[in-house]
Amino acid sequence: MLPVAKIVNDPVHGFIRLPAGRVLQALNHPIVQRLRRLSQLGLAQFVYPGATHTRFLHALGVLHLAQEALTSLAGKGVTISAETWEAVLLAAFLHDIGHGPFSHSLEGQLLPYTHETIGLQLLELLERDLGDLSEVRALWQGTHPRSFLSELIAGQIDVDRLDYLVRDSFFTGVQEGLVGTERLIYTMAVAENRLVIEEKGLTSVEKFIVTRRFMYWQVYLHKAVLGAEWLLRRWWAAFAQSEEHPRNYSTDTGLDRFLSLDEAAIWGWIHWGTGAAFPPLRVLSRALLERQLYKIRYTPPEEAPFLREVWRKRLPSPHQTWQEWFWVEGWAENEAYQPGQEENILILTKGGQIRALQELSPWIHELAGPTRRFFAGGLPVAWLESQQL
Amino acid sequence: MLPVAKIVNDPVHGFIRLPAGRVLQALNHPIVQRLRRLSQLGLAQFVYPGATHTRFLHALGVLHLAQEALTSLAGKGVTISAETWEAVLLAAFLHDIGHGPFSHSLEGQLLPYTHETIGLQLLELLERDLGDLSEVRALWQGTHPRSFLSELIAGQIDVDRLDYLVRDSFFTGVQEGLVGTERLIYTMAVAENRLVIEEKGLTSVEKFIVTRRFMYWQVYLHKAVLGAEWLLRRWWAAFAQSEEHPRNYSTDTGLDRFLSLDEAAIWGWIHWGTGAAFPPLRVLSRALLERQLYKIRYTPPEEAPFLREVWRKRLPSPHQTWQEWFWVEGWAENEAYQPGQEENILILTKGGQIRALQELSPWIHELAGPTRRFFAGGLPVAWLESQQL
Amino acid sequence: MLPVAKIVNDPVHGFIRLPAGRVLQALNHPIVQRLRRLSQLGLAQFVYPGATHTRFLHALGVLHLAQEALTSLAGKGVTISAETWEAVLLAAFLHDIGHGPFSHSLEGQLLPYTHETIGLQLLELLERDLGDLSEVRALWQGTHPRSFLSELIAGQIDVDRLDYLVRDSFFTGVQEGLVGTERLIYTMAVAENRLVIEEKGLTSVEKFIVTRRFMYWQVYLHKAVLGAEWLLRRWWAAFAQSEEHPRNYSTDTGLDRFLSLDEAAIWGWIHWGTGAAFPPLRVLSRALLERQLYKIRYTPPEEAPFLREVWRKRLPSPHQTWQEWFWVEGWAENEAYQPGQEENILILTKGGQIRALQELSPWIHELAGPTRRFFAGGLPVAWLESQQL
Amino acid sequence: MLPVAKIVNDPVHGFIRLPAGRVLQALNHPIVQRLRRLSQLGLAQFVYPGATHTRFLHALGVLHLAQEALTSLAGKGVTISAETWEAVLLAAFLHDIGHGPFSHSLEGQLLPYTHETIGLQLLELLERDLGDLSEVRALWQGTHPRSFLSELIAGQIDVDRLDYLVRDSFFTGVQEGLVGTERLIYTMAVAENRLVIEEKGLTSVEKFIVTRRFMYWQVYLHKAVLGAEWLLRRWWAAFAQSEEHPRNYSTDTGLDRFLSLDEAAIWGWIHWGTGAAFPPLRVLSRALLERQLYKIRYTPPEEAPFLREVWRKRLPSPHQTWQEWFWVEGWAENEAYQPGQEENILILTKGGQIRALQELSPWIHELAGPTRRFFAGGLPVAWLESQQL
Repeated sequence: MLPVAKIVNDPVHGFIRLPAGRVLQALNHPIVQRLRRLSQLGLAQFVYPGATHTRFLHALGVLHLAQEALTSLAGKGVTISAETWEAVLLAAFLHDIGHGPFSHSLEGQLLPYTHETIGLQLLELLERDLGDLSEVRALWQGTHPRSFLSELIAGQIDVDRLDYLVRDSFFTGVQEGLVGTERLIYTMAVAENRLVIEEKGLTSVEKFIVTRRFMYWQVYLHKAVLGAEWLLRRWWAAFAQSEEHPRNYSTDTGLDRFLSLDEAAIWGWIHWGTGAAFPPLRVLSRALLERQLYKIRYTPPEEAPFLREVWRKRLPSPHQTWQEWFWVEGWAENEAYQPGQEENILILTKGGQIRALQELSPWIHELAGPTRRFFAGGLPVAWLESQQL
Repeated sequence: MLPVAKIVNDPVHGFIRLPAGRVLQALNHPIVQRLRRLSQLGLAQFVYPGATHTRFLHALGVLHLAQEALTSLAGKGVTISAETWEAVLLAAFLHDIGHGPFSHSLEGQLLPYTHETIGLQLLELLERDLGDLSEVRALWQGTHPRSFLSELIAGQIDVDRLDYLVRDSFFTGVQEGLVGTERLIYTMAVAENRLVIEEKGLTSVEKFIVTRRFMYWQVYLHKAVLGAEWLLRRWWAAFAQSEEHPRNYSTDTGLDRFLSLDEAAIWGWIHWGTGAAFPPLRVLSRALLERQLYKIRYTPPEEAPFLREVWRKRLPSPHQTWQEWFWVEGWAENEAYQPGQEENILILTKGGQIRALQELSPWIHELAGPTRRFFAGGLPVAWLESQQL
Repeated sequence: MLPVAKIVNDPVHGFIRLPAGRVLQALNHPIVQRLRRLSQLGLAQFVYPGATHTRFLHALGVLHLAQEALTSLAGKGVTISAETWEAVLLAAFLHDIGHGPFSHSLEGQLLPYTHETIGLQLLELLERDLGDLSEVRALWQGTHPRSFLSELIAGQIDVDRLDYLVRDSFFTGVQEGLVGTERLIYTMAVAENRLVIEEKGLTSVEKFIVTRRFMYWQVYLHKAVLGAEWLLRRWWAAFAQSEEHPRNYSTDTGLDRFLSLDEAAIWGWIHWGTGAAFPPLRVLSRALLERQLYKIRYTPPEEAPFLREVWRKRLPSPHQTWQEWFWVEGWAENEAYQPGQEENILILTKGGQIRALQELSPWIHELAGPTRRFFAGGLPVAWLESQQL
Repeated sequence: MLPVAKIVNDPVHGFIRLPAGRVLQALNHPIVQRLRRLSQLGLAQFVYPGATHTRFLHALGVLHLAQEALTSLAGKGVTISAETWEAVLLAAFLHDIGHGPFSHSLEGQLLPYTHETIGLQLLELLERDLGDLSEVRALWQGTHPRSFLSELIAGQIDVDRLDYLVRDSFFTGVQEGLVGTERLIYTMAVAENRLVIEEKGLTSVEKFIVTRRFMYWQVYLHKAVLGAEWLLRRWWAAFAQSEEHPRNYSTDTGLDRFLSLDEAAIWGWIHWGTGAAFPPLRVLSRALLERQLYKIRYTPPEEAPFLREVWRKRLPSPHQTWQEWFWVEGWAENEAYQPGQEENILILTKGGQIRALQELSPWIHELAGPTRRFFAGGLPVAWLESQQL
């Protein structure tokens, strides 16, 4: 363990011990401090008002779990050099730096890249201040020679997922999402350079996957959360095509501009939008401020046109002109666990063999695969009526 | 809601409000007070030392959840008379009075009846002090005209199971067993006189079943817990065949004698057993006091003879004489959820139809059916060697 | 109890039941929805990164506790009409609507009024949509004929304080702040039209006051929290005197303008400030974004000049020009409980007498009075050096 | 840190890591396993039915906190040899081995010694199996050269008190008793060979003391708890003077006999007592089984004779004969914190000085001193009437 330089109080994990050295430098870097202004769950707080936790707090939690896992593995005889130890902590702590504001809704919109790609670019910026981070990069990209460490950072049961499940559960108040991180971490081991779960942790793994599925439907794909996220997406589309805004944002402007963006900036533009010339932008801006969401239902796709027609007919005729903006439909997906060749969760049997989870728990296969549901819905008609165009 | 007469502090549910009237009378009755001297999980505290909670506390918790459920159903327009309301609370509160000490291990041994049968007999005794309890009896036996109330007391997702899952999870410290009782109770409804779960609670039900399965393997069928329970069972067999004990217990002696039995009495006999004439009784008594358990493994049944032979050969020869007493094997079973004709969990779809859970979540079928594992193991040889015969 | 119309999940109190009628109307009103964009603890999240909870969530919690208290009082025979019941819930729910962004730091700056005054004005706006709210006003102002209800809303141990103590404790992770709200509410009673605590709750009251004191020093007056709040205050001063900003804010502009202000707007101005012409505004803006706080110490006031001199000498000379902006000092105050004629906490003795708390617990007097500490500190010199002017 | 050999799940502290070596040997020793059959709070579970936790679990908790404290002190540069480290863990883990059943009520009755004296004798027994434990003895007796370690084990804020406060709070459900052990342990330091609390922990210490006081009145001296404990004491007095019981217990019989005593044995005697010849013994035995407690009031001592007379007059005349057995009175005392020369809690100021707590927080002096209250009460008359003599 590295010497402790600072302690932060986390309502989820308790005292988090931050080591001196580059982790502390990273903590104080503007690129990391920016994560304080990005929420972990975006507009899910419209449904779960406690869920205002930030990516910054999540990053601390992931760091903490990585520390716990390394300590546990070290206790089982896995040797890890101080340098690699620090690299793992940094890889955990920095894993989300590429996210922008409201990432669930706007990823790929503010810059035409995934957050992973942006993260790699930001890592280069960080190297100017923190020195070489190539080991972090290798951990992220799965090219680290000790691949179990990559899997700890970005695998099927990694410290990222462990932290966000338990943290989202804590802050939403959906206590069914609580996962026994301590037990799972304690049953992690290394075999043939892979991260494996000892067989005594098998039911914990099953529980983890079912919990993830639960949280998907209860929180991440909750239909009101979906309604909120689509509201923001459509608002952005309306905003992006508006010519008038003095600070309108171009996706050409690159990384510096991206770094200055946070959720406050988006909210600022939403406020501005309430007075914009483009009618849908005005309406969608006000809808966000007053929490008037698309009222989504899960429905067979063939019934969506009918539902839409019912809704449309009740609209005042000026609003019918803009109806495309006030209705959404599409597929929501849940990929709690996708069994496949490369990404199996591996179980170390008592006999010392490595087996894929789905061999031992075949029902997982049926349970966890991608499940899609079609959704459709419009803004509340009564509220729309109260909105001048 | 009935007026509150007394408040009890429960670490799991917080303040539990006890209504005046027959519930309070029942609380103060010796038949109920006796539950204070029966632990909920018996010897599981050898593995989870926090799990010392009593059947009395569990009974209070079940009463509390029944109250919550009735209040929620009433809020949905289900009318329940004050008399029936009280009967439901009593049926919940008294549901376990037929248990004896260490019920997981000794049920059917102290009296040749199940705890349900004994419970019905004790209900008659209670009627002398509390007046007619036939409505309670009907709720227990499923003959109440409002069958949803029977299902609330003794169904697939009843208040008994809800309380014990969350309570056992709390006191063992196995936090993965925490179930969102509030959400499940809130999604309960009544349709066609059956207790149903509204479709929005579907993932909660799935979660409940997976959690139950988890708790089975992690706690109830934990191999050291099994080892402890079998130790007690074999101790009882040795004790029962011992002629010498002055207070030896006969299963003929009936209900009064049964009522005076509690876990303290069993422990008293265990102490006495350390000095008994019958060697296996002496050894098993000391094993219980010193927590030396059968070291059980789950194993294919065909390998058990081999394992036993390895163990036997290490025994000192005097101990080999009594080896039958120092070894156990058999099947452990987990019946988290047994789908079938009569006992389906019913889901009320958004369209207003009643559907069986396994139609909506077919993977449950595969998951939840009875799973059996063979186990085998002996007392620790090193410890046996230290025990004179 | 009023019929339940909606349920919200609160990580602190669990499921919060919202009654139909005017409470639900209030919930959906833009004046209340705006509270989603105001944090309860402002910049305290710089120190306790979990403390991102909003005034909206707090308002729900206060509503919940008010409901619990009314239910408990009703159970003790206090009769409350349905109309008054709803008024109490509204008074609880709306009690903080007059707050603006970062109220701890900026109260009185954005509009020259207290949040109570602004709240009363907003209540008039709400009356246009919700109808007469004069009973709410009376509850707020202490002129309600049933003065115990006013005390429940705004007294020494009111539902506001109960909620914020336990909520701030929960989200900061400072578990020592957890207050047993259930017990305190359960010991509330009415005597001579005053809200009193039954004597059996005496130690709970003492505990509540000591906890409040604890939270003051550990959270509200934590020196890094103070450093952050003063940073914002000085930033505002610099911003307010800057002529150049196109949207600069005038305190003349009244309530509509005030309502459109939220913390996102302030952060937007902070971003803008990083490029402003006025050097201190640039520096303070960046300090906020990078979490570079005044490094405050509690110190005797006579030593402050010396500390300042030490700090000043280390400043680069260009920065010395603006040193007034980079240094703060003053008194921090803690008024956990201020005993006095009008505002005593009243205890109902077992003998039926009403006594002031300080008669029964005289040490409270010494403990709880206003405690002041002088503080002083500057921005970190090393960081200032890295900032061009 | 010592290598981890075994992990135990504690609902309070989570996973407790047990080191290999003598700690594990101690764990498996019958003298320690016996603590599983002693409850931490005795008959307090008559009032708080969740409070069934054992001295064994508490011992594990104290061990855990000692480990945390040592790790924290080591992180601050205090060097501790592996040998001393283990001795501290053992001193923590074994600190309560001298307790007998129902120690709050029966200490000094079963053997005419304090639990400390018995503990020292049992330590000699343990030395036969574990080897030399003189360093443990020195830690207990305050003669260890590194006196801060003695203070950690048995001082004003030691790991024993920290664990039992938080544990008793957890299992009773009195959440106000939760103490932030992590923060207190983190602020411990060593100065001049004394255990001190850094000044930043001052409010935590104040909070700890007030919490202890709270728990005294809410749990340990709760009048129904007192009523239960006195019931057991008087029962013992009646039992001890009964000549007839075949296994009656003599205080001459020494340590071996004492070791075989547990709470089950006492309950066994209580069952036997229900059929004894001596009428008060019969009544008191049944009272314990049926939870009929002395109904105690706190009252000025001069009023006790009057209360007793009122009670006595309602007794049936056969019961008046034995009235001495059915009434109790006396002083209950609370010594949350007794400031004095030797036992001060020491605060390390930011300036590096060691100051006594009461210099910095003078109100503690007034608060925490011994508070005595007189109590009196009898068994419930209605219940007594139902008991034949």
